[in-house]
Amino acid sequence: MHKITVSTQQRDQMVEITAEVEKAVRDVHVLDGWAEVFVPHTTAGITINENADSDVVHDVLKRLDKMVPWREDFDRHGEGNSAAHVKASMMGASVRVRVEGRRLLLGRWQGIWLCEFDGPRTREVWIDAGPPVKRD
Amino acid sequence: MHKITVSTQQRDQMVEITAEVEKAVRDVHVLDGWAEVFVPHTTAGITINENADSDVVHDVLKRLDKMVPWREDFDRHGEGNSAAHVKASMMGASVRVRVEGRRLLLGRWQGIWLCEFDGPRTREVWIDAGPPVKRD
Amino acid sequence: MHKITVSTQQRDQMVEITAEVEKAVRDVHVLDGWAEVFVPHTTAGITINENADSDVVHDVLKRLDKMVPWREDFDRHGEGNSAAHVKASMMGASVRVRVEGRRLLLGRWQGIWLCEFDGPRTREVWIDAGPPVKRD
Repeated sequence: MHKITVSTQQRDQMVEITAEVEKAVRDVHVLDGWAEVFVPHTTAGITINENADSDVVHDVLKRLDKMVPWREDFDRHGEGNSAAHVKASMMGASVRVRVEGRRLLLGRWQGIWLCEFDGPRTREVWIDAGPPVKRD
Repeated sequence: MHKITVSTQQRDQMVEITAEVEKAVRDVHVLDGWAEVFVPHTTAGITINENADSDVVHDVLKRLDKMVPWREDFDRHGEGNSAAHVKASMMGASVRVRVEGRRLLLGRWQGIWLCEFDGPRTREVWIDAGPPVKRD
Repeated sequence: MHKITVSTQQRDQMVEITAEVEKAVRDVHVLDGWAEVFVPHTTAGITINENADSDVVHDVLKRLDKMVPWREDFDRHGEGNSAAHVKASMMGASVRVRVEGRRLLLGRWQGIWLCEFDGPRTREVWIDAGPPVKRD
């Protein structure tokens, strides 16, 4: 399994990691199979979304922030980052993508994103891919 | 991998594709294994939800639309469909279901749905299933 | 495949099931592989989130309830639990976690949770893990 590190600069930020996932797929010699991307944190998520126009990411993060306000009167959690926990579960902790011919099988506009909801922080992403090419 | 095409008629629409996924499972001769359903688009998602009462789908789409308004003052994305991108990530791009005895192992009321959030459009759904039955 | 039963006591409740998933992994003799956790219901979900401070769960459920009100004027579904269907799809029906050395490979603060959105009810959770250790 590959581990990569991503440093975020803002409280809410989406960082594209498609290239890192493709590199992991090549490094473990997967020809046809799958890649799984997992974030071992509870205030960050992984999602697949558009990677063509960075304005999409801006609008997505702003909508999530409006939907899930940072502070609420009912909050009990002492750390004060409960909103980030909600957003993390809304995005999910992992995605799984098919690999064909050593490449991720994504749609034309799709990229894989780490979603930071309580930055700036240093985050890990775990990338697992298989099966490796058999060499008889 | 099987590709199916779904034509949607409305901006927000859920189309059940459980039967198509079961057909793909049979076509690749999977006895016991899994089926994975992936949407290669960034303004549509895949989810599992009730397929008994179509009113559920109506209420789900209306709630999502209220939560994620189509236009916001802060929007920058020129295409104007940022809400669809948010909803797509909220639902997710794929689901994975176990197969036993050549059938999808779903709960009694569960179906697999393509979620259209920027229709009408023609959408692809990629269905992968395995492992195929070995014939020694 | 293992099936476990979870009895919930409230309409909205998160019940941690990490220990049950780890037990299933041990019972099927998985050394290095994966575990998949699936909920066969349409008003409950599965998610990964913090298991250190129970106040997080309180704040998460309250935020979801505020985002997705129980009743809306546009509701058509006779059972009156459409909000639970939305929340179920927002969390998702399954999670997948890597197994290494017979243990779930989770982040330091991560646990696996059944999310009840229409309780109290008795829920099933299906746990699948593999591959089993080969004994030559």
